Amino acid sequence: MPSKGKDRSARLVFAQNLREARRVLGLSQEELAERSGLHRTYVGSVERAERNVSIDNMELLAHAVGQTLAEMVTS
Amino acid sequence: MPSKGKDRSARLVFAQNLREARRVLGLSQEELAERSGLHRTYVGSVERAERNVSIDNMELLAHAVGQTLAEMVTS
Repeated sequence: MPSKGKDRSARLVFAQNLREARRVLGLSQEELAERSGLHRTYVGSVERAERNVSIDNMELLAHAVGQTLAEMVTS
Repeated sequence: MPSKGKDRSARLVFAQNLREARRVLGLSQEELAERSGLHRTYVGSVERAERNVSIDNMELLAHAVGQTLAEMVTS
């Protein structure tokens, strides 16, 4: 069941920022997966905000696109 | 197995900011748990950086202490 907007907005912001940062870098999801050490399908699901991504993986992803975690959670 | 410092620094920063924000508000872990809808022992483990906390719960905790998520991941 979807929760209220408030409860998932961070997830949506992170997802959008991740996709945007990846595209700006001209990376495929597969390349981002390789850079971050995560799986391609996992990266895709994070970008679709389907995953309740953990802080450790958020940090790996932010690092892989050259952003701070604070930037990645700011809309 | 513990990972390298770089991979867990966000977790440590969030943990420290959460504890600090809670104390500034004069809340116990139990009160913070109640405010955030999470369990007291869970909140404690997040504050000790033992938990690989998820973005949804980070958002709940940030909201419960009146901070933005970006503030909570900034050292």
